[in-house]
Amino acid sequence: MNFPAFRSTRQNPDKTLSNAIKNIFGFRPGNIFLYKLAFLHRSAGQEAANGTRINNERLEFLGDAILDAVIADYLFKKFPVEDEGFLTEMRSKIVSRVQLNKLSQKLGLEHLVQLDPAANGVFRSYKGDAFEAFIGAVYLDKGYMFSRRLIIDRILHQYYDVEELVKQELNYKSRIIEWAQKEKKNIQFVVVDEVGSGYKKQYVVELVVDNVVVDRGRDYSIKGAEQIASEKAWLKINPENS
Amino acid sequence: MNFPAFRSTRQNPDKTLSNAIKNIFGFRPGNIFLYKLAFLHRSAGQEAANGTRINNERLEFLGDAILDAVIADYLFKKFPVEDEGFLTEMRSKIVSRVQLNKLSQKLGLEHLVQLDPAANGVFRSYKGDAFEAFIGAVYLDKGYMFSRRLIIDRILHQYYDVEELVKQELNYKSRIIEWAQKEKKNIQFVVVDEVGSGYKKQYVVELVVDNVVVDRGRDYSIKGAEQIASEKAWLKINPENS
Repeated sequence: MNFPAFRSTRQNPDKTLSNAIKNIFGFRPGNIFLYKLAFLHRSAGQEAANGTRINNERLEFLGDAILDAVIADYLFKKFPVEDEGFLTEMRSKIVSRVQLNKLSQKLGLEHLVQLDPAANGVFRSYKGDAFEAFIGAVYLDKGYMFSRRLIIDRILHQYYDVEELVKQELNYKSRIIEWAQKEKKNIQFVVVDEVGSGYKKQYVVELVVDNVVVDRGRDYSIKGAEQIASEKAWLKINPENS
Repeated sequence: MNFPAFRSTRQNPDKTLSNAIKNIFGFRPGNIFLYKLAFLHRSAGQEAANGTRINNERLEFLGDAILDAVIADYLFKKFPVEDEGFLTEMRSKIVSRVQLNKLSQKLGLEHLVQLDPAANGVFRSYKGDAFEAFIGAVYLDKGYMFSRRLIIDRILHQYYDVEELVKQELNYKSRIIEWAQKEKKNIQFVVVDEVGSGYKKQYVVELVVDNVVVDRGRDYSIKGAEQIASEKAWLKINPENS
């Protein structure tokens, strides 16, 4: 016998996630476990009996590579005469941490991410990371060609203005320096921390404007960390371009 | 009428390249133009009427991304419990410039590369670059799944000892420093040149042992350039590991 009136009104969480993905991306996941993992931030992750950490970071590694490959293919065909320096720079613009965070926010993926509430605000790039992990899940679940179509048709074509990006100057540090000169502000880039050691060492750089810390960046090179801090600051100064 | 006895004994160069690829990789190219381009080093490249440079660098950009994606996929599945730091490091070991140059030499690809003879010796990584460009050509000609099978079955399985790479320490600078201490040699890393500017600036670092320049490396960070110089020097010191 069937008692539809007595069915719980609380939806199965797997079904909720599946519906959300259908709404946002237009397809229904096969293996829902992969997508649950893609949205599991390490602050809310678990540890398996053998010590393995269960979170979205492995999928992020995979998705990052798939995204890079698809965008390389897309740019190669879209810009048939530009040199590899141009292609590399364009890809950097498309997949920059700031861009991916913004994209993830527009898509509403942040609501799907499982994050320790206490950790919110600490992990600034968790949204973009979750998008990359999601792409890793799509690749494993549906294959390369499906991922490629999704990235090109539903992401690049709908959320990016590639022609506009061509014109956009990538070097945010130069922009910030020009802005400071124009506004007669004093700016400094200060290395405030070094994290890790050896080959994995990362630098934390703070951008200080008139003695106030405006933003910070972290990267494997000081130059890279300066760029990240500058890009964040630039988007604050010019929110209309965000 | 047909005069087979009068057919030229000199083979068509396209046919020669097609045969070489069949011998080395076990498949016959579809669009031979892509493969000719993949082996056209910029020192022997041409310039089109519109100023576009015709050489293998765009294909190298594409192939590098495809290679990274396939190896990410391979490592993700081969090492199901290792974290993303391990996966990233393993991939760096597999696709390091030195490894790809060695691979390209083992495959015999150097004989296929069109290089200005005057430029030989100047472009130390042209072999590995040509391998990446070749992968770009395969991807465009045969698609992702074909490229994936080729990279895993005919490259990784036949030319790499992945278990051995797991054990191998990646940090060549530390190795060189340890070696120098043991051998009581004086070593220095010297930044001798900076190429390009802004975001694209690269550093050239020389490794000097007892006042003799042993090797040099070039990268976007000083640390990266030091690693490259150290890796080259290490492989000279320990040719049995090469």
